Amino acid sequence: MSKMKVAMIQMRVVEDKLRNIEIAAEYINEIVTENVDMVVLPEMFCCPYKTENFPIYGEPEGGPCYRMLSSIAKEHGIYLVAGSVPEKDEEGRVFNTSYVFDREGNKIGKHRKMHLFDINVEGGQCFKESDTLSAGKDVTVFDTEFGKMGLAICYDFRFPELSRLMVEAGAKVIVVPAAFNMTTGPAHWDILFRTRALDNQVYTIGTAPARDESSCYTSYGNSMAVSPWGDTICHMDEKEGYRIVELDLDYVDRVRNELPLLAHRRKDVYSLLKNNTIQNI
Amino acid sequence: MSKMKVAMIQMRVVEDKLRNIEIAAEYINEIVTENVDMVVLPEMFCCPYKTENFPIYGEPEGGPCYRMLSSIAKEHGIYLVAGSVPEKDEEGRVFNTSYVFDREGNKIGKHRKMHLFDINVEGGQCFKESDTLSAGKDVTVFDTEFGKMGLAICYDFRFPELSRLMVEAGAKVIVVPAAFNMTTGPAHWDILFRTRALDNQVYTIGTAPARDESSCYTSYGNSMAVSPWGDTICHMDEKEGYRIVELDLDYVDRVRNELPLLAHRRKDVYSLLKNNTIQNI
Repeated sequence: MSKMKVAMIQMRVVEDKLRNIEIAAEYINEIVTENVDMVVLPEMFCCPYKTENFPIYGEPEGGPCYRMLSSIAKEHGIYLVAGSVPEKDEEGRVFNTSYVFDREGNKIGKHRKMHLFDINVEGGQCFKESDTLSAGKDVTVFDTEFGKMGLAICYDFRFPELSRLMVEAGAKVIVVPAAFNMTTGPAHWDILFRTRALDNQVYTIGTAPARDESSCYTSYGNSMAVSPWGDTICHMDEKEGYRIVELDLDYVDRVRNELPLLAHRRKDVYSLLKNNTIQNI
Repeated sequence: MSKMKVAMIQMRVVEDKLRNIEIAAEYINEIVTENVDMVVLPEMFCCPYKTENFPIYGEPEGGPCYRMLSSIAKEHGIYLVAGSVPEKDEEGRVFNTSYVFDREGNKIGKHRKMHLFDINVEGGQCFKESDTLSAGKDVTVFDTEFGKMGLAICYDFRFPELSRLMVEAGAKVIVVPAAFNMTTGPAHWDILFRTRALDNQVYTIGTAPARDESSCYTSYGNSMAVSPWGDTICHMDEKEGYRIVELDLDYVDRVRNELPLLAHRRKDVYSLLKNNTIQNI
């Protein structure tokens, strides 16, 4: 079983938190008629992307949004990479968190964004997630019957170390709910998805909210998927909608065999380690 | 002193080893009238790129090619990143080596390609450098009055770890004599130069031989330079010639300040180490 069908939903984000989940559910009702295995939602798909909103929209794991998302996965027997949502922990900290549910609605993955997006580009985008968000600290890989898949959120994907560590943990696909903006999107979105795919010989999937010029933060859109050879296999524009791509995980092995980048790493010269690994030396 | 002028020479490679150096010298005679600070030559610019040739064309450090290149740098008072040449060591091993000479003709950098190019793409390019070459093991950064610069050779640039380590060592520019082919060039050349620049917020400079369809290995050409924001600032076609680019090393600091990717690395979560660093823990 090497071929899987993945749908990316490039949806609009409205103020009403639960209405966003209904919008996702309506899309999924339509999409499942095409026998998809997995659906991927955008970053902060149920919370307009604004630092002040994160604590207000935040819920603990297991809250109403979580339960609705789990139910959708179970109802349709699909994997659901549930974009990201603001998660409140017991100490009141808020994380930008992506949950993954399996075909029975069980949580099989959870990633808390570990690189917070704090930028200040002259004449361009300013944003400071760390005003209201805390950062995760775990590299996230989850398992499916097709193979292992890595999970990162938006700005996380800027850091080649993280993708490499996911691949070290077995990922053949990296899924990235994201929301680049009108400064960083046109400049960097495409090459990031292409290069991480190429460097790591994995499929990459980036799902963003549709562009809404009237919103507080204008998403670039352009949800896309890239093959392990670095070819763009799907590229949306800025408008609302969805696309389905077929991934062939055997092709990952074939590319890694023909151009053995991973095997050619000079592990005798350099090592990329997770912190706990270092502590164990 | 933050602005420097760098010339890339996309030259043809002929069978006669020393004639190639004369060709480079003729170009440089013309180029220095434009007050350039540095000239970069392509990978294996004096040896047609073929595994059998490397031991035949190889010379020890300090051999005839080396001395001619040093003299050219001194004569014109320029930095010369002397592409790469086959280097024979005392044990008879052959390396794919890039020397860097300063304005006085002194060697200030030397990089032995550390990732050997062994690929076998179905219906595409096959090549096995390791048939005749040995691999280097050092990360190479050299110093100029403009700032530090990293040095890699072609396939080395595929490995994000190496660029990261050069940046850790202070590089604000990464110079890459290279020779992608007609399989990997169209597929990957551009995004690699753009992404390494973007991920590491450095200038990248890739200099390749001109395309010669009649040669044993067809170089893609397309020598290019990219800014630390990931913008292509110079892009040649496949034909012989040269281009001069101006780099502003203050712009590196500005980009790193506005979009602080390097500062945002989660060094508490992951660490990229050189081997000797690990051994010292």
